[in-house]
Amino acid sequence: MAFKIQAFEVTRKTYEYSKPFKISLGAHYESVNIEVKVVLDDGTYGLGEASPSFLISSETPSIVETGLKELCQSLVGKDVRNYRALFNETDTIFKAIPSAKAAVQYAIIDALTTSLGITPFEFFGGAKGSIFTDKTVGIGEIEDMVEEAKKIYSEGFRTIKIKVESIETGVESVEKIAEVTNNTGYIVDANQAFKAKEAIELANKLYIKGVNVLLLEQPVHRKDYDGLKLVRQSSPYPVAADESVFEKYDAFKLIQNGCVDYINIKLMKSGLSDALAIVEMAKSAGVGLMIGCMGESSLGITQSVDFAAGTGAFTYHDLDSSLMLKEDNPLKGFEREKNELRILGRDKRWN
Amino acid sequence: MAFKIQAFEVTRKTYEYSKPFKISLGAHYESVNIEVKVVLDDGTYGLGEASPSFLISSETPSIVETGLKELCQSLVGKDVRNYRALFNETDTIFKAIPSAKAAVQYAIIDALTTSLGITPFEFFGGAKGSIFTDKTVGIGEIEDMVEEAKKIYSEGFRTIKIKVESIETGVESVEKIAEVTNNTGYIVDANQAFKAKEAIELANKLYIKGVNVLLLEQPVHRKDYDGLKLVRQSSPYPVAADESVFEKYDAFKLIQNGCVDYINIKLMKSGLSDALAIVEMAKSAGVGLMIGCMGESSLGITQSVDFAAGTGAFTYHDLDSSLMLKEDNPLKGFEREKNELRILGRDKRWN
Repeated sequence: MAFKIQAFEVTRKTYEYSKPFKISLGAHYESVNIEVKVVLDDGTYGLGEASPSFLISSETPSIVETGLKELCQSLVGKDVRNYRALFNETDTIFKAIPSAKAAVQYAIIDALTTSLGITPFEFFGGAKGSIFTDKTVGIGEIEDMVEEAKKIYSEGFRTIKIKVESIETGVESVEKIAEVTNNTGYIVDANQAFKAKEAIELANKLYIKGVNVLLLEQPVHRKDYDGLKLVRQSSPYPVAADESVFEKYDAFKLIQNGCVDYINIKLMKSGLSDALAIVEMAKSAGVGLMIGCMGESSLGITQSVDFAAGTGAFTYHDLDSSLMLKEDNPLKGFEREKNELRILGRDKRWN
Repeated sequence: MAFKIQAFEVTRKTYEYSKPFKISLGAHYESVNIEVKVVLDDGTYGLGEASPSFLISSETPSIVETGLKELCQSLVGKDVRNYRALFNETDTIFKAIPSAKAAVQYAIIDALTTSLGITPFEFFGGAKGSIFTDKTVGIGEIEDMVEEAKKIYSEGFRTIKIKVESIETGVESVEKIAEVTNNTGYIVDANQAFKAKEAIELANKLYIKGVNVLLLEQPVHRKDYDGLKLVRQSSPYPVAADESVFEKYDAFKLIQNGCVDYINIKLMKSGLSDALAIVEMAKSAGVGLMIGCMGESSLGITQSVDFAAGTGAFTYHDLDSSLMLKEDNPLKGFEREKNELRILGRDKRWN
């Protein structure tokens, strides 16, 4: 068994969206991801994927690719069994580009577990053999959003995430979707579009109609912690932070100040290191957890499926980006049946 | 007069330090900066400089250069008179690489003011024709630090910044420097090296000895706001935040929670846009201001001299990086006599 890092390979991959995906911050037409391969001394390797979201973190694929090619060099020669030391180092060197941190940290764990004959899922704790994901309806004409939601429901998804950008169209779209999807359960995601009082008005209007909103996600600006707290205190629905949380320090401050019911962890924002810290903090504080994604392909989604199923810590799973991309022969560590994502063993993976 | 942006030129420049410069986070041997030239329709141009500090913000020169070459494209064709719109756009697109934001924002203001026949200094308000800078003693053998401080004092500097990394060597170095430099006034900078109680112990030990410490800078971890507050409440000396403040939102939270006596604004962390916001907030709240630098050459230091002298908002100026670098024919908008930096008019600048 080998554990010493011999080299890194960094490769850019472009995936087209099946159809344009729009949120309050802008539209996506393709997802450009950076694949990281870490090779150990005996040729054993691990893979990881960075999916930089320019709208969320101002990382571009070129910035992330440049940073990975430059900064991975300092990790060569190190032992993947000392993964905490490598997590600490990557926390620092990739602070400006967290999606790069996620890819490298997962690739290290993938290589380590390959050498050990297990999967990252088992490394993270092997808590649940499968998880259930939602699927997302992007912003569009209301009739198109309703059709999309009907299709998602008929495909077997039982939680639907809905993107909103204004009170009027937000209330109308969510209400009409609820009517045709059996009021199944909705995560309403504003991506920072509202002031606190606007978000409360949206929530109240949906509550009066009896809509089964499970979470109101990132209603206000990422740094408006007081606004988030006010929405939490005044809205009938649980409030989740997404863009407000990158590092563990952000999560600590939100929890400390009672600003959130849920935190949406994304590996692309936090890497494995801060994600693990946030999981433990949230569980200790009685704060709920969901896991989300950026524009990951099946490889990147595998990272989050392994983490979420392995820790078993998440109430909601929003791991649908690879379902929205055109992929040939995807690399994956899970298989899907309707809304269920089941972990695959090492023998059915890439390495 | 032309105001429309025609093109950007991005150039990497390497400057050697006259001698290695060490702080608690690591050592610097050279400063690799990225020069930005914005050219308007009639050939009028403005310059700016990004000085990425990997130890502080995890930006590397290559990441910043890549991001600038890619992201400046969206600004071509826009009007530099609409500088607020350009500030807003650069706030977003350069969020991951704030030193790039600083360079582009200053280059835009330099081009605009060149077209108008004034300087950025006047654009910022023309408050003071000159400012007085400190000079910094890096970490080293205590006898070397004392010699360095004596030299700095003999050269006419009347505020000396001293880097520290432990209680024992910190107390000894500052005390010995005070003995040989007439207890002139010291900014003691820990770059996050301490826990709160350690910082308080350091401060108490220096206070008992009667050392004239003007500021205790960034004693604790950048995200330890509560620790900063505790040091502020328990230390006899004023406490300044540096690495804790990048965006205006960070400054707001620190001020809102009473964590700081002073904020150290650096254009490389905040750009002009957030720096202007922090100045107004701090003045409104009665919080003091200092201005600092990373590894800027004279061009980059000109940015901060224009800003600090133009706004007249700063009690302490720590603009000494170009004094520590080897430069041939520097581009500069100020002239120095001892510790005084005097603004130069447009006719004596580069454009």
